[in-house]
Order: sequence, then structure tokens, then C-alpha cells
Amino acid sequence: MKRILTVLLAAVLFCLPRVAGAAEQFVSFSKGVRPALIRLDPQEWPGVKLAAQNLAEDYGKVCGKALPLTESGFSKIKKTDICIGTLGHSGIESLLTPAQISSLKGAREKYLIIATKDRIVIAGSDKRGTTYGIYTLCEQMGVSPWYWWADVPVEHQDKVCIIPGVYTDGEPAVEYRGIFLNDEAPCLTGWVNENYGGYTSGFYVKVFELLLRLKGNFLWPAMWDAAFYDDDPLNSYYADMMGIVMSTSHHEPCARAQKEWHRYGSGPWDYTKNKEALDAFWRKGIERMAKTEDIVTIGMRGDGDEPMTEGQNIELLENIISEQRKMISEVTGKPASETPQVWALYKEVQSYYDNGMRVPDDVTLMICDDNWGNVRWFPTEERSGGYGIYYHFDYVGGPRNVKWINTNDMHKVKDQMTKCYDSGIRKIWLVNVGDLKPMEYPIQFFLDLAWNPDTQVREHTREFARKTFHAYEDEIASIIDTYGIYAHIRTPEMLKAETYNIQQWSSIVQLWRDLRDRALAVKEKLPARYYDAYDQLVLFQVDAFCNLHEMRMAEFYNDQEAVNKYFARDLELRDYYNKVIAGGKWNHMMDQNHISYTYWQQPEKDEVPVAKEHRMVFDGR
Amino acid sequence: MKRILTVLLAAVLFCLPRVAGAAEQFVSFSKGVRPALIRLDPQEWPGVKLAAQNLAEDYGKVCGKALPLTESGFSKIKKTDICIGTLGHSGIESLLTPAQISSLKGAREKYLIIATKDRIVIAGSDKRGTTYGIYTLCEQMGVSPWYWWADVPVEHQDKVCIIPGVYTDGEPAVEYRGIFLNDEAPCLTGWVNENYGGYTSGFYVKVFELLLRLKGNFLWPAMWDAAFYDDDPLNSYYADMMGIVMSTSHHEPCARAQKEWHRYGSGPWDYTKNKEALDAFWRKGIERMAKTEDIVTIGMRGDGDEPMTEGQNIELLENIISEQRKMISEVTGKPASETPQVWALYKEVQSYYDNGMRVPDDVTLMICDDNWGNVRWFPTEERSGGYGIYYHFDYVGGPRNVKWINTNDMHKVKDQMTKCYDSGIRKIWLVNVGDLKPMEYPIQFFLDLAWNPDTQVREHTREFARKTFHAYEDEIASIIDTYGIYAHIRTPEMLKAETYNIQQWSSIVQLWRDLRDRALAVKEKLPARYYDAYDQLVLFQVDAFCNLHEMRMAEFYNDQEAVNKYFARDLELRDYYNKVIAGGKWNHMMDQNHISYTYWQQPEKDEVPVAKEHRMVFDGR
Repeated sequence: MKRILTVLLAAVLFCLPRVAGAAEQFVSFSKGVRPALIRLDPQEWPGVKLAAQNLAEDYGKVCGKALPLTESGFSKIKKTDICIGTLGHSGIESLLTPAQISSLKGAREKYLIIATKDRIVIAGSDKRGTTYGIYTLCEQMGVSPWYWWADVPVEHQDKVCIIPGVYTDGEPAVEYRGIFLNDEAPCLTGWVNENYGGYTSGFYVKVFELLLRLKGNFLWPAMWDAAFYDDDPLNSYYADMMGIVMSTSHHEPCARAQKEWHRYGSGPWDYTKNKEALDAFWRKGIERMAKTEDIVTIGMRGDGDEPMTEGQNIELLENIISEQRKMISEVTGKPASETPQVWALYKEVQSYYDNGMRVPDDVTLMICDDNWGNVRWFPTEERSGGYGIYYHFDYVGGPRNVKWINTNDMHKVKDQMTKCYDSGIRKIWLVNVGDLKPMEYPIQFFLDLAWNPDTQVREHTREFARKTFHAYEDEIASIIDTYGIYAHIRTPEMLKAETYNIQQWSSIVQLWRDLRDRALAVKEKLPARYYDAYDQLVLFQVDAFCNLHEMRMAEFYNDQEAVNKYFARDLELRDYYNKVIAGGKWNHMMDQNHISYTYWQQPEKDEVPVAKEHRMVFDGR
Repeated sequence: MKRILTVLLAAVLFCLPRVAGAAEQFVSFSKGVRPALIRLDPQEWPGVKLAAQNLAEDYGKVCGKALPLTESGFSKIKKTDICIGTLGHSGIESLLTPAQISSLKGAREKYLIIATKDRIVIAGSDKRGTTYGIYTLCEQMGVSPWYWWADVPVEHQDKVCIIPGVYTDGEPAVEYRGIFLNDEAPCLTGWVNENYGGYTSGFYVKVFELLLRLKGNFLWPAMWDAAFYDDDPLNSYYADMMGIVMSTSHHEPCARAQKEWHRYGSGPWDYTKNKEALDAFWRKGIERMAKTEDIVTIGMRGDGDEPMTEGQNIELLENIISEQRKMISEVTGKPASETPQVWALYKEVQSYYDNGMRVPDDVTLMICDDNWGNVRWFPTEERSGGYGIYYHFDYVGGPRNVKWINTNDMHKVKDQMTKCYDSGIRKIWLVNVGDLKPMEYPIQFFLDLAWNPDTQVREHTREFARKTFHAYEDEIASIIDTYGIYAHIRTPEMLKAETYNIQQWSSIVQLWRDLRDRALAVKEKLPARYYDAYDQLVLFQVDAFCNLHEMRMAEFYNDQEAVNKYFARDLELRDYYNKVIAGGKWNHMMDQNHISYTYWQQPEKDEVPVAKEHRMVFDGR
């Protein structure tokens, strides 16, 4: 009977349209098929093998003992083995029905998890499909994608079972879904240098794993003082092996970091004056990435992410792109259109487009927001290369950096990204996430939304809270949600004593204090083993931004003593994050100055603000 | 045994300090002493008799049949009569122990409610003490002070009983606790004209009753186009009879309305040019109020609540006040110091004080806020006349009127008024409440705080919600509380498309929409008989202010169609308040224009705003 139901369920699954991202809970901790072994084919993708190894270890985190893993293929399956395989790359087809095979064939990044009483199969349409299937199982077992990156504890279970059935998340709505590690000093760089001696593969493997657990597949790497392909040859190796598609940022053409030009380039970064050197420099980048899935950034901006010098114009840029594409074609031996390329309409570059500049239709046009989360335009014409969006959760630039903590309102992100999706921006969704931490929740939301644009903010936040803390999910979700809304109204870096007037300050601070009280109240109720995760994902930012508001209000009211107190608390909170949370694991991640701003760029040092007399009679200002 | 407990309780009551305002729940709907009759002495104050009559009727609202009432005194008490009397003014002493008498004697506005199985006694130290005792019983029976003013329904009970014991609220912390009906056109005046043919005693008796039920005792009457003493001779008669202390506003000296000068005065409103006429005018005011408890406003401002003309100075003002006091002394036949007087340091008048101007020590110095709820200074020296505070919930003036709806944050009110109390401002607490509606909750809070400055905002809001709606008190209180905080951040009249930037609008509107959703969700759960009260006290303002934010955001985003829609909804909401709530009882109360402001003064008409293109890239503005 159960068998029939399963078959029926499978039949239903392949007939009815599935909502992407909605794999139901298939893990049970009481009944169902209990796995004994993980089984892979020796020909399986190395990246899938690595994910399977993580599954084995995650099982150990949950149940106390890792699952054994064999690469001896599927010829001698024992009951309840987990058989993992990628279509066309292992013998997994032998365990699938023709309908299952055809539902995977040609699909993008799709997995099927098929549990019967005889076995559990995780089959993927491609290496990422299989990997996502594996990590979906990990998450359902209770291992958060953030288990390492935010120290989310794993709840012990006596057993892990799979409920018989066929499960899938379908295919992603957006093809490339990723993050940009940017504006990465002092925090991320300080932490990376201390832990990995630089932006090396030890670090990137952790990032790739996180991305894959979040069902992302795309990354722009750190580039302030780093060169992804050059710093450690294993960086690109692991990306390709694990299934992460790399690219270089919007102003770093041809898969070469700007830092590489500083290391190896000669002459000016000016195509009119130094064509030969630049061509040679770029060709090397193409050669290096040619065997990967990486996307080639084309075009050119001025050195240091500035506009090109005056006089450099549309004609020149069209010529540059034409030369770059010729290079791609020459190196790959295929038409340029067969290598994915992206041209980013960042800042002034959009005006070239507005003024009529066009690139070949196969190039993905990457639309950019205004750096503050407002998308500047939405396409109305189709193009074969499709459209991407480069969005910002973090920004370095005017009027003020947004670098310290998360200031993003998911409702706005949902609104803007839904508009992107609806207008056909479906090729690339990329978001600048600064130091990665403490941007955990926005990253999760962004990547989930890229998989399924129907994702609803509040359901999502609640699910995130539930899966992460296993209790108080309504209240925690409401705190995360409210924090984002409040924080987005005015960023910490722009908050000054003058931001609010005598009518507003006390009400604004009341809102923040109430939110902090709520966040503290939840922490008191949580088991102590959740403190590290809760501090990182919820409390720290609420507390620190509340304290900053209190400090600015004290400045407004000319209360130097209170200013000193709140300033000292700001430093204490910074130290707490760096030195106390998770035993100091995240040291440097809160090194970011955020108080003594005088112009757009960050201050060298935060110093106690000087309180002064402000207008004490309300006159509307 | 019960008797002994009662006596013990009484003993404890008079030994331990009592927290003012904390009369515990002494009404039960199941057991205790069940009243049969209300009994008064024929010599009782008429105002107390009127309150007792209201008690008899309130009992009828609760139980279906009014309590009978006799004025035959206390010689033939039957079991469980409610015996009401004021110390020294009725034979109530015969029903009190010596300890009870001494606890009332010389006390201010204090009541004792003493329930034994033989009888229920409501004894007051003075007429207001007795009245407050009566209305406290009414409220505990379930008749809200707002039963008429906000149509709060009365829950039916099969019986009303008093739990044996001795109950008191002690004495008020602040001597005069009142409101100022001001800026009263078009709303209050429109409503008053339609219902009472002007500011007559029919209207004022309703106001006085409300004030007494809220344990207030002080009123500045409407004065834009009204003259309290002159419009209806019964106005002052009822105030005095019921126990309301009147005064005239800060710029209307000697108990004469400015309107009276326009009606009867001759020559300029200038003491240097028209001393004789002004003296005669003012003397008449003193003569008229001489037999009341009213407080005489002294000093002078320019006509129409403007500063006096240039050149008029401290010396002149000191001379005016000296003449006014001479007049008071001559009319009353007593030293001026025996008639309570107030001098308001409103706007520029405070600078006279700052520049050294002083008035005799027995005059109450009335400190004023900046019209926006920020108290400008706190006294440091004691004075025999004490200090008052003139506070604003509503304001007409620059930068923009605050007239439409409630925009007050009770946390700020608590903060400011506690500072007032702590610095010795304990003689008068007066607040400008505009049209009275929809300022219900802030009025309740202000007067309760004046009785007991230890009142805590959130406990109070919760109690208000519980007593008013008898359900969902946590959620309703949170909505009221949050509304006040949000509304105070930017008043409706000052809210423009330009108020927020592209970074802020969506988050601000998200906050408002969430709050409206919560307010609507509560209404859906409430019984329909609560809709009128809920609309007036909670929902209307949340909904209307949310809608205004939506309209301004649509203007910002240049979406004329949406602007039109929200503007139309604003008019619908206005009509709903005026014509639908309580069957149109409050017609005109929402006549206030609030959209088409171009300078501080209200617009003649609200017209659809014209959406326009705003800055769509965030640059910090």
C-alpha cells in the first residue's frame, strides 16, 4: 500500500506543476527509511563526492557517528543505502525509472530524492543538481547552511529517516545566483589573513560550501587587495571542482583581477595609449579560465573602479569589447557567443547604454542598482544573452559607505528583485555582501528568492528562524524583519545627532530600545548553546545599532557623559563580537569603524563624538 | 471574621503609604455587597448630587434598571444602601470612624469607599473627592469615562457587588489637572454648532462630566470664536456647580475671553494707549468669577495671541500685572494673594522672565513647552504660587499646524511630564487637546499621570485597552503605543513626498501597513458592538495616517493614479468618521484639512496632490 502511494505520489509529482523551492520535509526523526551507507560511483564528479563526504560528516553531527561512504558504485546495493549520482556521469540511471530519468534530463541543477523501503537515491541532472540534493538532505537533518559560518548548533537525533516518496526542488528560476565579497577590508581581510594567510583556497572552499548549501552557484571574489585566480591556483580549481561559477567584478575584464594589473601590468590602464599590453594581459585571463564554466566580464572602466578618463567614449568602449571577444574566440577556438560574457552597466556605464551603445546580443547585460538597493531601470527587450542584476547589500561610496552591519529591508529587496525577475532579469542575480558577515540572513533570502521569486518575506524569515533556532520562530522572525526595516531607514554611517530633530529622537530611540528588549528577552529563553548563533544572526546588530542611536541622541541633547558611555559600549560590543562570540572565531569581523565619518570614506579611527547644543525648540528642522 | 479583616485592612490602609491612583478592583459581578439604593443628604453639593444621579443611571446601563436615589439623608439607612456624602457638608461623618474622618479631613480631592455588609459609603474630603469616588465606582462597574465621548459599550452584568473593604485613590499629585479646548475650528466648532448651537452649557456639561470621570478638575475653554463666561451664563454656573475650575487662556487676562474684547471693548488692545478701557474690561471679568474657584490669568499678550507690539516691554508688563492684582484685591476684598493667579511664560513671554521680569511669589508661573511637547525649562527655585505647565498635544502655528489627528508619543509625554513633576511643577498641568477628539487616549494618560506621576506608559495603555475593550488588551495596547511612536516622528501636516528619500519610503510605509494590518485584524475579532469605539480610539487614525503615507509615497514615485486612489480614500475615511461611526454622531469632527498645506496655516481645501518625478538615485538626501 505504501508502495502504491509512493508511486502515486511520484506520478502526481511529474504531472502537476511543482512550486520550485518547496521540497517538503522528507526527513523524519522517528520513522521511515534509515540510511546505512552512502554510495557513489567512482566516476562521480569530485565536487559531488566532496558534498557526499560532508553529508557523511553531517550525519555524524546529528547522530553522533558519521555515515560510512563507499565509491564502489551501484552494483551491490544493500538495503537503505543512500545512492548518489549525477545523470550521465555515474550509473545512477540504473536506479531510476524512465520517467525519473526524463524529468532530470536536460534540466538545470535539478535533483530527485527518491526514498523507497529498499533504498534512498539522490540523483542530479548535473553536478550542482546532485550537490543541492545532498545539501537539502543535510539541512533537513538539522544542519543549517550556516552551521559553520554562524555557529548554528546541530540538534542531536537518535536516528535520521527518510519518509518514502519522491522529492525535488525543481529548477532554479535564475540561472546564476551569487554573491560578491567586496569592500572586504578591514573585517573579512583581517579575519582571512589571521586564519588563512590571505584569500587562499582554504577560505574559498568554506565560501563555496556555504554557497552550495544555499543553492547558489556564482561568485565574484574579493578584489580590494586580492586576485582570485592569481593568489592561489587552487582557488579556481576548487571553484570549478565544487561547481561554483566564477567571474571578476564589473570593472575587471577578461577574468583578470585589477590587482593583477598592478602586479604584472605595465604602462597606463588606458586602451588608447596601451592597447598591446592590455590585450596581452587580458588574453592571459581568458586562457586561464577557458576550461571552466566561468563568466567573462567584458568592457572597461577606469583604474580603481572609477569612470574612464574624459574623452574616452562609446566608440572606444565598443572597440575594446570587440577586441575582447575576438580574443575569447581565438583562445577557445569557438565563436565568442559560446563563452558566457557579461557587461555591467555600472554607474556611468549605464549612460553609454542610454546613449545608444550596444554589445552583441549574446552578452548578458548586467543592470545595476543605484548602490542603495534601488534598481535604476528594467529591460523591455529580450536578448539572447539575457539580463543580470548587480545588487548591493553593502556599498563603499557616496554619500557614505554602508559597511558596518546589515541595513537591508527584505521587503524592499523582495519588491526590487521581483520587478527584476518580472522584467526578464533572470540570467544572473548577484549581490554585494561586503564581508559576508553579518549579512547572513539577507544572503539566505536573496539566494532563496533567486531560486524561487515567489518566496514571501515573512514566511521565509519565519522558516529561517525555525530552522536555525527551533523555537520562538515567530518572535525571532519578527525581530529580524523589524530590524531590517528600521536599519534601512538610516544607515549607521549616515546617522548623526542632526539626523533627527527634537520631535523625533525620543520616538526613534524608543523603537530601537523596544526592539532590543525583545531581542534580549528571546536570548534569555534560548538554550545557551544557541547564544553564539543568536548573537551573530540576531542580537548583535540590534543591540549595536540601538546603542548607536542612543549615542547620537545623547550628542543631540548635549549629554557628553552619556555619549562617552554609549561610545564605550560600542567598543565593548565590537570586542564582544571579535573576541567572545564563538570563542573569538570571528576576530576582526567587527573591526569596521562606523562612527567618526566626515565624508564618504571610512574614518581611520572611531573617536568619542563631542556632544553639543542642538536646536532645542522644534521648528520643523 | 470578615469584619475583623476589614478593620485590619482599614488600619493597614491608614498606616502604610498608599500609591495614589491604585484603588484596587472593588467591584465584583458575582459576590459582595449588592447595592439597593443611593442615598444623599439634601445639603450635599449639587455637583455631587448630579454625579450620584449619573451613578444611578450607569447602574441601569450595566444591570438594566437604574438604582433608585433618595436625598433623605442618613438617618434611616437600609441594608446595602450606597451612602454618599462630602465631609462637613452632609451628615456623612456619622457613618465614618474617627480614623476615617481624620484621613479625609483637610485632604484634597480624596475619597474613601467603605463597604461593609451593612452599607456602602462613598465619602469625600471635598466635592471633587466625593465625585471622584462616585465615578471610580462607575468605571469599576464597567462604564468607561468615554462611554459617551467615544461610544464605549457597557457590558451587561446580572449584578454589581462591592467587595467589603476600604478603598481610596489618595490625593492627586498635581493640584489642577486639565485640558484646553483649542484650535477648535472647523471640527469641534462644527460639531458643537450642529449639536448645541454654539459653546453652550449643554456642551460644557458633557465636557465637565468627562473631566470628572477622568479625575480632572481644570479647563481652559474654547476661545477662537467663543467666550466661555459670556456665551452662556450657565457655562460658568455648571463648572462651579460640578466642580470644574475654569480659567482663560494664557493671553486672555482677568477671566475675560479675547472675543469679549472684540464684542464689547473699544479702542486698541494696547495698555499704553487704552489703559482705562482695558482696566474696566478686566475688572468686569474679576467681578464675574469672584465667587468661583477659578484661576485668574494675569499679564498681557498682543491681540490674537501675538507678541505685544515692539517697544512694549518688561516694565509695562510689570505695571499691567500690578494693576490687575490691585483690581483682584479691590473686587474680592481680600489680598490678591488669596485669589489663585497664573502667569504663562508662553513663547516670547519666557524671554521677559529670562531677562529678569518677576511677578509676586503667590502667582503660579506657568511654564510652556515649545508647542511640540518639549518643555523649554524646568524651575530650580521654590515659590509659594508654585509652577504650572502648559503642554501641547495639538498646536496651531509654525512650522505647521498639528490639528488633524493625534500625533503624540506617550513615552515622550511621560518623560517630559515626569521631569516637570520632579522639578516641582505640581500646581497646574494643562494640555492643549485641540478638538478633544480624537485625542481620547492621550487625554486619559495625561490626567492619570497628573494624578499619579508613577503611572507607567505601557501598563497604563494596557489597562486602558482592557477596560475599554475587555479583550485583546495586549495587542490593542501595542497598536495604540506603536501608533503614537510612529505618528510623532513626522506629523501628517508636515509629511510630504520629500520627507523621505528613495532609501526610506518603502520601509516607512511597510511599518505603517503592518500596523494597519494589525489594527484591522483586531477589529475582525472584536464583537460588532465595539466597532464604533474601536474605530474612534484605535483604527481610524492608524488607517488614515497609513493611507496618507501611502499617498505621499505614490507622489514620490510619480504615480498619479495611485495618488488619486489614496486621496479618494482619505476623503472616504473622513466621511466614514463623520457620517458612519456611531451613526453620524461625530459629524464634522473630521472636517480638518490636512493635505494641501503650503505654509503653517491650514489649507482652505484639500486637493489631489500632483505627483512628480523625484530623485530616483539615492545620494543621501
